[in-house]
Amino acid sequence: MPEGPFSDITVIDLTHVLSGPYCTMYLAELGARVIKVEHAGHGDDTRSFPPFVDGSSAYFATVNRGKESIALEFDKSEDRELLLEMIRRADVVVENLRYATLEHLGLDYDDLRRINPRLIYAAISGFGQTGPLHERSAYDPILQAMSGMMTINGQPGSPPTKVGTSMVDYFSGMFCLAGIEAALYNRTKTGTGAKIDIGMFDAQMAVLETALMNVLNGGPAPRAIGNRHPAASPCDTFSTADRALFVIAANDDTFKRLCIAMGDPAMAEEPGFRTGADRRANDAALKERMERILRGRSAAQWESLFAQAGVPCAIVATVAEAIELPQVLDRNMIVTAGGIRMAGNPIKISSLADPPTRKPAPALDADGARIRAEFAPRK
Amino acid sequence: MPEGPFSDITVIDLTHVLSGPYCTMYLAELGARVIKVEHAGHGDDTRSFPPFVDGSSAYFATVNRGKESIALEFDKSEDRELLLEMIRRADVVVENLRYATLEHLGLDYDDLRRINPRLIYAAISGFGQTGPLHERSAYDPILQAMSGMMTINGQPGSPPTKVGTSMVDYFSGMFCLAGIEAALYNRTKTGTGAKIDIGMFDAQMAVLETALMNVLNGGPAPRAIGNRHPAASPCDTFSTADRALFVIAANDDTFKRLCIAMGDPAMAEEPGFRTGADRRANDAALKERMERILRGRSAAQWESLFAQAGVPCAIVATVAEAIELPQVLDRNMIVTAGGIRMAGNPIKISSLADPPTRKPAPALDADGARIRAEFAPRK
Repeated sequence: MPEGPFSDITVIDLTHVLSGPYCTMYLAELGARVIKVEHAGHGDDTRSFPPFVDGSSAYFATVNRGKESIALEFDKSEDRELLLEMIRRADVVVENLRYATLEHLGLDYDDLRRINPRLIYAAISGFGQTGPLHERSAYDPILQAMSGMMTINGQPGSPPTKVGTSMVDYFSGMFCLAGIEAALYNRTKTGTGAKIDIGMFDAQMAVLETALMNVLNGGPAPRAIGNRHPAASPCDTFSTADRALFVIAANDDTFKRLCIAMGDPAMAEEPGFRTGADRRANDAALKERMERILRGRSAAQWESLFAQAGVPCAIVATVAEAIELPQVLDRNMIVTAGGIRMAGNPIKISSLADPPTRKPAPALDADGARIRAEFAPRK
Repeated sequence: MPEGPFSDITVIDLTHVLSGPYCTMYLAELGARVIKVEHAGHGDDTRSFPPFVDGSSAYFATVNRGKESIALEFDKSEDRELLLEMIRRADVVVENLRYATLEHLGLDYDDLRRINPRLIYAAISGFGQTGPLHERSAYDPILQAMSGMMTINGQPGSPPTKVGTSMVDYFSGMFCLAGIEAALYNRTKTGTGAKIDIGMFDAQMAVLETALMNVLNGGPAPRAIGNRHPAASPCDTFSTADRALFVIAANDDTFKRLCIAMGDPAMAEEPGFRTGADRRANDAALKERMERILRGRSAAQWESLFAQAGVPCAIVATVAEAIELPQVLDRNMIVTAGGIRMAGNPIKISSLADPPTRKPAPALDADGARIRAEFAPRK
C-alpha cells in the first residue's frame, strides 16, 4: 500500500483542544508529517481531559495520534527563531490560538508568506479574522447559543439545548481541512500558498439546514421538534413491545411497504395516511395507530421485518451497544493507538492504508530534541 | 481574483437529497464544473422540499447552487452511453444512490477506471460499501439512533433525541469532500484516481467525542447532560433579569475574571469553587449562586460586561435573531442565488472570490441540450 496522498507535506500544528487538532489529525491520517507545537510546561489543555488510560488522556490521544510533539516557549527568542525556521521549511501552518497571538510574535500570514511564499496558513477562530466580533473568543456551545442551534435541538417545549457532541468544533475542523486541501491542490498549479480563515460561527451557520432556509425565505419559525422531520412522516421513534425503534418512510412507496410489513396493508390507502401531506397533517394519529401494532412485537423483530421490506429503521441504541455492532468492526471504525481505543478514520480511500493500529499520540516534547536539531536555524 | 482551486476539474454529480449535494456544492464553490445528473421526470427529491420561493425549493437551491443539470433515463441505452462518455472525460464522479444502482448499470468503479484511470469515484451510503449492513439504506436519523447519538443529546432524563439539524448528512458530505480533494492532490503526483467509500454510520461514529472515548476506555456511561460539559464548570445556560445567557469559564483564570465581572471576586477563592474539580463537584450550587447575581441585570448587560472581561458568553438566540447579527453579514454568511437567500461558504480562502451573489441552482435539465451536444459519444 502506498503512502498517503499528503506524504510530501509537512504541517506545523499550533492548534489545541478540538477543532484544530481534529483537522490536523486527518492531515496525519492522510500521510502528512504533523509537528505539534505545544507550550512548554502544560502543553495542550486536553492532555488533562478525561478519560485516562494508564495516566494518558484518551481525549488527547484520539485527536493527536500520529503527530510529533515539540514544546516551545514563545517568549524566548531562541524558540521563536526555531519556530520561524520550521515554518520557513513547512507546507502548512494551522492554528486556533487566541486572537493575534501569532501577530504579536511577528508570525502573522503577511510576515510568513514573505519567508515562504508556498506556505498555506490556516486559522480557526470563534468568529474568523474579520467582522465586529473577530476579537471575541468562543467555544463550541457559544456558537450553538448565538446561532439559534440550541432553539431547534430538543423535544418540543424543552429549553434551548446544546447538541450532545461538539458539533461546531468538528465542522470547523472539517471546513479547515477542505480549505487546506484545496489550497494544496491549487499550489500544484500556481506555486503559491494562501491564507485560510475559518470562523466557528460561520461553520455553525452553514449547517442549520431547514431552519435557516425558513428564516431567510419566509417559512415558518423554526423550533425544536424532537425526532420528527419537517418534511417526512412517519419519521420518529416508536414504542414496541420492549424498546424504542426509529422508523422512516419518506415516500408513499416506502410507506406501503411499511404497512405491509406491519400486517396492515389497508392503512396505506386510508384517506388520512395516503400521501405524504396527509401523513404530515395526521402525524400524531399515525404514530398512535402504528404504535398499537408495533407494541405487539419486540424492536429486534420489527427491525428485522422492516429491513427485509426495505424500510429504513434502527433500534435506538446506546453508544455502548453501538460499538458492539459487527459493522463497526468490519469498517475498522475502532482503532488502537498506544493502547488506547478510539474512533477510526471515516475517509476510506482505495489507495490509503487503514490499519487497525495507528501511531500513538506523542508525549509532550517527545520529538523536541530531534526537531531542534533538524530545524536549527542556519547561521 | 483568480478562478477557484478546482477550476480545471469536472464533476459528474449523481447525488441527491443532502449529503452528496452538500459535498459537490463545495466543489462548485471551489471552482469545479459540477454537472448534476437527475432522473428524468421528478429530478432530485429536494426539488419538492419546503420552503419555496416563487415555486422553487430553497432547500434544493441552497445545496445545488452553481451546478448544471441534465436529466437522464438510465434504462435508455442512449442515455447510459452518454453518461459513460461524460464519466470518461470527467475527473470526479460522486454518488449517493441506493446500493448497487450503478453496478446494475455497468458503471461501478472497476468498470469506470478501465475507461478512465484518472477518475476519482466517491460514494456515500448509509453503511459504506462493505460490512454486514452495506446493503441497508439509511437516513441521517437512523444513524443517530444506531450510534447512541440520540441518547447523549438532550436534557437530563429526556427521551433519546435526534440532533436538530441533519448533522450526519453534513459530516458525510464533508468527509467525502476531504477524500476527493486528497485524491485529486495525489493524482497530481501519481496520475491515477481512486475510489472513496464514505459510510454515514462511520461518519457518525467519528464525531461522538467524549461519549465514545468513555465507552471504549472504561469511563462513565455517557448520557444526555443538557448544556453542561463533562470537563468544564461553569458551562451552562444561566437565567438573567430577562433571558438565558450561555457562560463558559473553562479554567481558573477565566473563572476569576467572571467573578470580578459579576462583582463578587471573593467567590473565586471559596473552597467549593476554587478549582475546576471543585466547581464540577458543586456544579448545581455554583449555578444557583451565579443566577442569584445574574438575575440582577439583563442578558445584554451581562454579555457586554463578560465580553470586556474576556469571558466567553452569548445570549441564547433564535435563528431569526442570529441572521440579524452584523457579524453574519460582515462574513458574507448569507448569500443570494436566483433570488433565494441561503447560507454562504464558511471556507474562506484568500485566493478565492466570495461574492454576495452566487450562480443559481439549475432547473431540471436546464443544461441538458448543451451537455448532450458536448458529450455526444464519438462514433
